[in-house]
Amino acid sequence: MARNKDFDEDTVLESAMRLFWQKGYSATSMKELEQVMQLKPTSIYNAFGNKRNLFQKALKMYMNTIMVGFLDSVNHAESLQDALSDVLDGVVRLHFNKAHPGGCLIMLSIQESEQHDVQTKTILDSAIHQLRDAMIKRFRLAQQTGEISASRDSKVFANHVTALIAGMITMARSGFTRNELKKLVQSSGDCLIQQYRH
Amino acid sequence: MARNKDFDEDTVLESAMRLFWQKGYSATSMKELEQVMQLKPTSIYNAFGNKRNLFQKALKMYMNTIMVGFLDSVNHAESLQDALSDVLDGVVRLHFNKAHPGGCLIMLSIQESEQHDVQTKTILDSAIHQLRDAMIKRFRLAQQTGEISASRDSKVFANHVTALIAGMITMARSGFTRNELKKLVQSSGDCLIQQYRH
Repeated sequence: MARNKDFDEDTVLESAMRLFWQKGYSATSMKELEQVMQLKPTSIYNAFGNKRNLFQKALKMYMNTIMVGFLDSVNHAESLQDALSDVLDGVVRLHFNKAHPGGCLIMLSIQESEQHDVQTKTILDSAIHQLRDAMIKRFRLAQQTGEISASRDSKVFANHVTALIAGMITMARSGFTRNELKKLVQSSGDCLIQQYRH
Repeated sequence: MARNKDFDEDTVLESAMRLFWQKGYSATSMKELEQVMQLKPTSIYNAFGNKRNLFQKALKMYMNTIMVGFLDSVNHAESLQDALSDVLDGVVRLHFNKAHPGGCLIMLSIQESEQHDVQTKTILDSAIHQLRDAMIKRFRLAQQTGEISASRDSKVFANHVTALIAGMITMARSGFTRNELKKLVQSSGDCLIQQYRH
């Protein structure tokens, strides 16, 4: 039986995603979700399930629209150095983009992991590991092209980059300026590439 | 008028601190606080004020008991290299200490900054900046003793360390192992010290 929906699922899901991104999982009430989605509770439930289901769908939308840009910049950069500065610049742009709520839904939700069930935690852990693994892959390509030393550990490099990504999001949320973070992108990129060149 | 309290303020405040540290601000209900503090709502209110006041007191306790250890290890290390490895090792120990709820109350609360009022946000921003500023001070001392180059920018160095601290806490909460993070402490410390030596 087809239901005749008078709303666009992606549009209302995006509203929910932005509210979770701004406030966090537990701080977002069903009442507020109803308001931003402009839907009645039963319509939300029929289209998306309960609050946990809705959150998971919002998280997947975030991964497919926001996080995918980070993976693309790692995968398609001309060099490891470019991949590094693109992804770290991307963190600064993500937070300071006035059209965004600030911070990162994935990093916020990882900090709030106690609020999530096992299934959601698995999606969150896999998201941050996908980013780390893309950086490992790009590092190994740079080893093949001779940009960096073939003897160095790709995992340790990728973990350092992951720490910078996650850490810069926290800093952006706590009063560090765009300019300070741009300088950090530059200097941390130089630090890493120089260390791994030899 | 002295009230005859039948509880120790520090003990019950510590219980509240640990619950906020585990769950986050909004996800912690007054009902759960009453349970872990083993107090009636009116006793909590009389001793600590409302939920926001209680959270601020818990945050101050965290700064005076947990964060102070990080500042001490930066201020009292023999060298900048030691300061760096002590503080990053401290992050790993903080999370993996079985007596702790995991993660860091300050980093969690910064991610949840939308849940806090202006006064609490100011305390949170000042906490992460205190840590950064201690690293700047230790860096300048290392410039005087000749451990690192006098021409390098202390603020950029300290911001890189702050990003690693905040980022490693997020990684610890998302399935990165103790061993992976210990390797990162070693390699990121080497990376930074080598870069700033010249």
